[in-house]
Amino acid sequence: MEYKNFSQLKSLKKLNELKPFDVKSNLNKKRIKEYQTKNGSTLNYSYATMPVNEEHIKVFQELSEEQDLINKYKALLNGERINTGEDRCVLHQLTRGQILDDVISDNENKGEFYKSQLSRIEDFSNKVRNGNIVGSTNKKFKTVVQIGIGGSDLGPRALYLALKGYAIAQKKDIIDAKFISNVDPDDVSDVIKDIDFETTLFVLVSKSGTTQETLTNKDLVFDALKSCNIEGFDPSKHMIAVTSKTSPLASSKEVLDAFFIDDYIGGRYSSTSAVGGVILSISLGFETFNELLSGAHEADINALNENVCDNASLLDAMIGVYLRNVLELPSTAVLPYSQALSRFPAHLQQLDMESNGKHVNRFGENIDYLTGPIIFGEPGTNGQHSFYQLLHQGTDTIPLQFIGFKKSQYEKDITVDNSTSQEKLNANLTAQIVAFAIGKNDDNPNKVFEGNRYSSLISADQLTPKTLGALLAHFENKVMFQGFIWNLNSFDQEGVQLGKILAKKVLNGCEGDENLLSYSELLK
Amino acid sequence: MEYKNFSQLKSLKKLNELKPFDVKSNLNKKRIKEYQTKNGSTLNYSYATMPVNEEHIKVFQELSEEQDLINKYKALLNGERINTGEDRCVLHQLTRGQILDDVISDNENKGEFYKSQLSRIEDFSNKVRNGNIVGSTNKKFKTVVQIGIGGSDLGPRALYLALKGYAIAQKKDIIDAKFISNVDPDDVSDVIKDIDFETTLFVLVSKSGTTQETLTNKDLVFDALKSCNIEGFDPSKHMIAVTSKTSPLASSKEVLDAFFIDDYIGGRYSSTSAVGGVILSISLGFETFNELLSGAHEADINALNENVCDNASLLDAMIGVYLRNVLELPSTAVLPYSQALSRFPAHLQQLDMESNGKHVNRFGENIDYLTGPIIFGEPGTNGQHSFYQLLHQGTDTIPLQFIGFKKSQYEKDITVDNSTSQEKLNANLTAQIVAFAIGKNDDNPNKVFEGNRYSSLISADQLTPKTLGALLAHFENKVMFQGFIWNLNSFDQEGVQLGKILAKKVLNGCEGDENLLSYSELLK
Repeated sequence: MEYKNFSQLKSLKKLNELKPFDVKSNLNKKRIKEYQTKNGSTLNYSYATMPVNEEHIKVFQELSEEQDLINKYKALLNGERINTGEDRCVLHQLTRGQILDDVISDNENKGEFYKSQLSRIEDFSNKVRNGNIVGSTNKKFKTVVQIGIGGSDLGPRALYLALKGYAIAQKKDIIDAKFISNVDPDDVSDVIKDIDFETTLFVLVSKSGTTQETLTNKDLVFDALKSCNIEGFDPSKHMIAVTSKTSPLASSKEVLDAFFIDDYIGGRYSSTSAVGGVILSISLGFETFNELLSGAHEADINALNENVCDNASLLDAMIGVYLRNVLELPSTAVLPYSQALSRFPAHLQQLDMESNGKHVNRFGENIDYLTGPIIFGEPGTNGQHSFYQLLHQGTDTIPLQFIGFKKSQYEKDITVDNSTSQEKLNANLTAQIVAFAIGKNDDNPNKVFEGNRYSSLISADQLTPKTLGALLAHFENKVMFQGFIWNLNSFDQEGVQLGKILAKKVLNGCEGDENLLSYSELLK
Repeated sequence: MEYKNFSQLKSLKKLNELKPFDVKSNLNKKRIKEYQTKNGSTLNYSYATMPVNEEHIKVFQELSEEQDLINKYKALLNGERINTGEDRCVLHQLTRGQILDDVISDNENKGEFYKSQLSRIEDFSNKVRNGNIVGSTNKKFKTVVQIGIGGSDLGPRALYLALKGYAIAQKKDIIDAKFISNVDPDDVSDVIKDIDFETTLFVLVSKSGTTQETLTNKDLVFDALKSCNIEGFDPSKHMIAVTSKTSPLASSKEVLDAFFIDDYIGGRYSSTSAVGGVILSISLGFETFNELLSGAHEADINALNENVCDNASLLDAMIGVYLRNVLELPSTAVLPYSQALSRFPAHLQQLDMESNGKHVNRFGENIDYLTGPIIFGEPGTNGQHSFYQLLHQGTDTIPLQFIGFKKSQYEKDITVDNSTSQEKLNANLTAQIVAFAIGKNDDNPNKVFEGNRYSSLISADQLTPKTLGALLAHFENKVMFQGFIWNLNSFDQEGVQLGKILAKKVLNGCEGDENLLSYSELLK
């Protein structure tokens, strides 16, 4: 299998010669019907308002074959050490189910290992929810608080917020989940001021067991737990860990139990491992988490399709590369028309920008082409009343990734002015897609909308655990494919190291570095 | 007073000839000390790591004079109809206090009008907090819920989150505030499922009284209130309005009382009017809100300084123009090192992108230069574990706006490994500024940090109401100055209209528009 220089690809040369398809003049019923594809049994990816036509798609297919993308994905699934810089396999898809060969590493079958952890999560979460595991003063747990940062926070938090309403509507018992992430001590203070320690279980999440923010926050929480002065209260009965087997946390006496991940699950890809699984299963029930896994697994299987038109995440990746490298557009907005997805854009921001915001290729060599874009976004219709002005009439083109659902989660709705709120929500979504694509002429330049502001739409019947799993995996696989196309290692994050080193230096007195010293004095 | 074409300015020509100052090679103690200025009594704006030196600043001064910026600001303060497209004054600064002449419009003294509303807010909020105004079943209000969208949501929500911890630390009684914004019916369901209607007061915010989302959500809430089956319960005693005097809401029998704004307060600039004032005064106390106003007023006065080096918001605006129009950088990240500012970037996103995301000048003519950038951001240190990888090592340069404070709000902290959490937080902030500016060489290209990734730092002792007010006004005035420089109308939002028109069309059956019809069918 060959890893080719992106800028030398024959297919890229062809792509560079293709003008953007003029959506504004050519959008019609037929195109909208044809330019869509399924991702698994729940998601629909519609790209009729993207600047591509059959010619582009033909070259996308050539690019996929020239860069051998599907075989690279298969190699990843089969446990090849795709994360070369850190000499690691990349196995987050395996947390959702096995697709190809057994992966044997560190003398164990990794699929079995993840399955065994999943089974432990099922057992533990059921016991917590049933009251068979209780706090040190024999009270049932009513709150679960995750302490973690980055991938141990954004994904699990986004998924929890996305599914809470659904679980409530399904009449599940909810154990309220909260999250502590920032080393800012106000983050801990704000969360713990409202909770009853006797009925709270903390989940400490750090793969290495050495993350500065997480360990500091654990100590802050322990300090509060120890000083709560309740007879018989034992802090260590109120804390569990999600970590690697070899981490100091794994055998710490400060925790009641530990659930394991390994080095083959990157933080930003860890939502479907124990990192997301423990808190989601405790708060919303193991079944909810398991359905999420099944949706992700479907999307992982869909990503094996050789034909780009039948492979939604690959096609999305290809269109993104065309927007980025040919049209040189620097950003993408993610716009879910569902309030439950309020933090999903923040998760995608990490997923995409940390994976592909790189200036070297997978061999550590400098590159001469653009890589990952800026990702940002807020739910619609809120965003319409905020930054959409610039999206419609600003001087830059910003491609848009819409997400929408036919039904709401609670399905509590009323008719006002002849339509329900859900109908209004989707009428707005429909209107925006068409407004961005077609625009509007007017004699008054201030009322002119240029059109050809590109978007795609991922839609599904309802935001369920299964749909959400597919949505998550769609984006993970899109990012993976773009990494393969650009010949990057999407699974390391060397760019976060320098800040860590300098922060230590500051805490040790700046060692005579006058710049560090001057700035630290501004903050003293 | 002359409104000049930006692209024809002599000073712009000079600016275009100035190379970016090489921060990487020239950062030192002296520069860090000199390249900072105060904004009012609380804020410090440091720009030593921006690519400018004395030469640039000299041209900034020329640009300010050539485009007559301070006089334009004075004209705005004096009530000139700066919002030409809508033929309106722009008076949000007046909600914080009068600076120049009386503004007389619509046969009233506008300063007196805003003051009288403020006084009504003081009176009403004190009565709610004292229990002199209670719910229809004679219970004290414990929760206040704002129903509003865009400017009636993002600013007030961001400010509430920013000040809640401070108010708690000051031992103030807190009336819990919640927000409903999205027309997605799940937004209402999620908020109202947890509240006790008998002790909840809703604040309905819509200047026109016709905002689709807000009126629909009001009806959804009313529907729930009416069906709560509590003896003696009267929904209209649980709802107040913030609106314009002429709106249908002002005299609605559905509300207990109404507080007024007018057409001269744009939504995104309305946080310091009754739009933010009612909910902040009820939830955190009128004094808290009044201190916020005093901080904003100081920054408004500071913005009158003719010397750009003594005018932090003007200088920030100028540097932003250099980054945008000369260096052609498409975005700016806002990175507050305070968890309490978690939604402040989302507010700035609206403020900046809706104000200056324009393709016509203030006369409605097409323009040939870049305007407002993309604004996005998340709190540090969280962001460090997310998208900072791309900021450090991605292929684009993204200017950074850091915000930091010497002290936390709760001031509950412990020492772990010889430093407090607050010290760790600020060590990280210091480290990031220097890492972005100076970078790091290495034989391994994957460990190379290019440096010259530009940032500025706004810092203060603590995130207090006064500091927050100054911070808010700093950015409002920055955006205003950039609008003046680019010769835009920063106070209209014509770009949101087309979507509204098309959404109505969809709700009326698409009127044979096959594109709207096809997309709406995807969502049915």
